[in-house]
Amino acid sequence: MSIEKLRNSVRNIPDFPIEGIQFKDVTTLFKSAENLREITDILTKMYADKGITKVVGIESRGFIMGPIMAVELGAGFVPVRKPGKLPADVFEEKYEKEYGTDAIQIHKDALSPDDVVLIHDDLLATGGTMIAAYNLVKKIGVKKVYINFLIELEDMKGRELFAKDVEVETLIKF
Amino acid sequence: MSIEKLRNSVRNIPDFPIEGIQFKDVTTLFKSAENLREITDILTKMYADKGITKVVGIESRGFIMGPIMAVELGAGFVPVRKPGKLPADVFEEKYEKEYGTDAIQIHKDALSPDDVVLIHDDLLATGGTMIAAYNLVKKIGVKKVYINFLIELEDMKGRELFAKDVEVETLIKF
Repeated sequence: MSIEKLRNSVRNIPDFPIEGIQFKDVTTLFKSAENLREITDILTKMYADKGITKVVGIESRGFIMGPIMAVELGAGFVPVRKPGKLPADVFEEKYEKEYGTDAIQIHKDALSPDDVVLIHDDLLATGGTMIAAYNLVKKIGVKKVYINFLIELEDMKGRELFAKDVEVETLIKF
Repeated sequence: MSIEKLRNSVRNIPDFPIEGIQFKDVTTLFKSAENLREITDILTKMYADKGITKVVGIESRGFIMGPIMAVELGAGFVPVRKPGKLPADVFEEKYEKEYGTDAIQIHKDALSPDDVVLIHDDLLATGGTMIAAYNLVKKIGVKKVYINFLIELEDMKGRELFAKDVEVETLIKF
């Protein structure tokens, strides 16, 4: 019931950023204090017993619920960012987009192999960015990784990219 | 005392992004669960009795503590973003950077004039971006606005840009 209310708070924007795309606008979800509290409580409950020590958020929209979950779970927050933004030594992963390739980076000293990591982004579409983020976390040697998205576009089958032993959770499905 | 510990957790990166700049890296602050909890508690206490209804965070690093403060204060979260990112009708403000101008946007329907707004960004340097964000919030007709930064670079005198009746608070000073 409450997931349905959250789902109805996501605004659909036709033809953004290009024709044919039905963009899911989460700003209408986050601007409601009540919804923000509810999302926070549901996500925190989902991971409360996992022993998460670091939440990794993907720039930029993964920086919204990622830090909130970190605080609520008693974990630290680690950003994954576009190239040129993180100032210290980084690992980088490239990934395919509709046109050409893009890349993301993580600080090499942001995690340790013993961390239990939850990676969060707002939207699961093709899954390319999250696979790259997962690979970055694995490069540091982290053994236990959970993956979370606020929204999943099921038709895009991004979920199929992930190995079966990786726990991928999504809150709102379209 | 605890502010001093937080201050020592900010990493200084010489000559980033360009020669002569001493970059303040907050990733070393946020990756510590203990520090993140402490910042959260201090900032929440600072604004607990202000009746804040919306926290506005400036892309991208203002998206880290902004949403956390929103949840803790029982408010909604509203992003201010670079052009082309927000999908619905926006107001835009331009501002000067070292080289040329930049711009930020807010959804026109993100706030209402009766909201009590806290605008957050991670760093007060020249203050240009925050003045632009303040003007965006004012364009919507909001009457009561508070401004918060995690870090203030005092030598850059960004604080002098703000009108005297605007409450500007910063946590860690360099």
